[in-house]
Amino acid sequence: MDNGPTDATPTAAAFRLILLSKSNPVMGCYMFWTSLLVLKMLVMSLLTARQRMKTKTYANPEDLRLSRSPEVRFGDPNVERVRRAHRNDLENILPFLLMSLAYVASGPNPLTARLLIRIGASARLLHTVVYAIIPVPQPARALAFFTTFAITCFEAGYVLVCCIKYI
Amino acid sequence: MDNGPTDATPTAAAFRLILLSKSNPVMGCYMFWTSLLVLKMLVMSLLTARQRMKTKTYANPEDLRLSRSPEVRFGDPNVERVRRAHRNDLENILPFLLMSLAYVASGPNPLTARLLIRIGASARLLHTVVYAIIPVPQPARALAFFTTFAITCFEAGYVLVCCIKYI
Amino acid sequence: MDNGPTDATPTAAAFRLILLSKSNPVMGCYMFWTSLLVLKMLVMSLLTARQRMKTKTYANPEDLRLSRSPEVRFGDPNVERVRRAHRNDLENILPFLLMSLAYVASGPNPLTARLLIRIGASARLLHTVVYAIIPVPQPARALAFFTTFAITCFEAGYVLVCCIKYI
Repeated sequence: MDNGPTDATPTAAAFRLILLSKSNPVMGCYMFWTSLLVLKMLVMSLLTARQRMKTKTYANPEDLRLSRSPEVRFGDPNVERVRRAHRNDLENILPFLLMSLAYVASGPNPLTARLLIRIGASARLLHTVVYAIIPVPQPARALAFFTTFAITCFEAGYVLVCCIKYI
Repeated sequence: MDNGPTDATPTAAAFRLILLSKSNPVMGCYMFWTSLLVLKMLVMSLLTARQRMKTKTYANPEDLRLSRSPEVRFGDPNVERVRRAHRNDLENILPFLLMSLAYVASGPNPLTARLLIRIGASARLLHTVVYAIIPVPQPARALAFFTTFAITCFEAGYVLVCCIKYI
Repeated sequence: MDNGPTDATPTAAAFRLILLSKSNPVMGCYMFWTSLLVLKMLVMSLLTARQRMKTKTYANPEDLRLSRSPEVRFGDPNVERVRRAHRNDLENILPFLLMSLAYVASGPNPLTARLLIRIGASARLLHTVVYAIIPVPQPARALAFFTTFAITCFEAGYVLVCCIKYI
C-alpha cells in the first residue's frame, strides 16, 4: 500500500460514520445492555406463569385442563402485581431502548453515552426486583423508575438538539 | 490526492450505503421525531400519576402511605382513560418507530420518507391530545389513529416489496 | 482503476462493517419479517374493533354514538381474548424485533441468523392464529409462544457473549 495515507483518510472517516456497528464501543455497550433488558422482560412472562400456577388464576378456558382448575379467574393480586410490573417495562424499557439507539446514532460523547446506558439499564433491573420479586416500601421503586425516566429524557433532549435541522 | 476520482467512487458509494447514520437526512428526521414521540410516551406516565393522585386511586399497597389513602383501588374512569391512551401508544407508536427504522434502512425517496415520518408522528401527538388531555367527540380520535395506522402499513408494504428476495 | 486491489481492501472491509444496511442479506431478512410482524400487530387493532362492534363493548363514552350503544361496557370475553393476544404481542414481538436488530448488528452466521428470524417471526404469526382467530386446545399456543421465546433468548445470549467486553 504505497498510497496508504491518501486512502486512509476517506476510509477512516467512513468507519467513524458507522456508529450503529459493533466496531463502535458505544453500540457494543448498547447491544450488551439491550440483551440483558430483553432477557429480563422475557423472565416477566415466566414470573407471571409461576404466579398463575401457584394461585390457579387462568385467563383462558383452554388453559384450565393443564392445571385442573374449574374455571377462568381474573384479578388475583399476586398475578396482577407481576402484570403491572411487566406493563411498566413495556412503557419504559422499550422507549428507553429505541431512544438509546437513536442516541447512539447521534454520535454522543462515548464516555457519557456508555455511563447513561449502564445506569439506565441497571435501574430497570432494580425496578423489577423491588416491584415484582421482593416488594419493598417506597420510594425504592420510584427512585429506580425516575432514574431511567430522566436518562431517557436527557437522551431525547440531546437527539432533539442534534437533529433539529432535520425537523 | 492525485488519485481522487478513482478513490471517490467506492467511498462515496460506501457513504450512501450508511443509511442508518445521521449524515442521512431521512435518518436525522427519524431521530428527531423518535425523540418527540418517546418524550410524549413518558409524559403519559406523569399524566397517569397525576390522575392517580387526584382521585387517590393507587394499585399497590406500598403506594398508599405517600397519599394517606386507606386502601388500593382500581377502575377509576379518569385513570383508566389515560391508561387506555398509554396502551394505545404502546400498540401503535412502538411498531411505527420500529417499522420506520426498517423503512429508512430500505433507502426510500427522501422527500416521501420525511413527509411520512412527520405526518405519522404528528398524528400520534394529536391522538394523545384528543384522547387523554381534552376528550373530543369522534371521529377526531379515529382520524388521528388511522393516519399513523395507514402510514405504518404503507411503510411495511414498501419494505416487504423491497426485501422480498430475502424472505 | 489501476490501483484496484489496494483500494478494494479497506473499502470492502467498510462495506462488510455496514451490517445494518439492506446490502446485508441478514438485514434484508430482518426487514422483511419486521414488516410482516408489524402488519400483524396492526391487524390486532382491527380484530379488537370488530369484536367491540359485534358485542357493542365500547370503553369510551365518545364512542357510543357511532354504535347506538347505551353505555360503556368492559370485560366482554371475546374482546378480552383479542386484547390479551395483542398484549402478548407487545410483550414478545417488540423485544424480539429489538433483540434481532442487535443480533444482526453483532454479525452472526448469515444462515443461522436468517433461519432464526424466519422461524421466530413465523411462530408469532401462528401464535395469533391459535390464540385470537381460531382458539385451539393447548399446547398449540404454548409451543408457538416458546419457539419465539427460545430464539429471543438465544439471540440475547449470543449478543451478550459477543459484546461482553463493552459491559
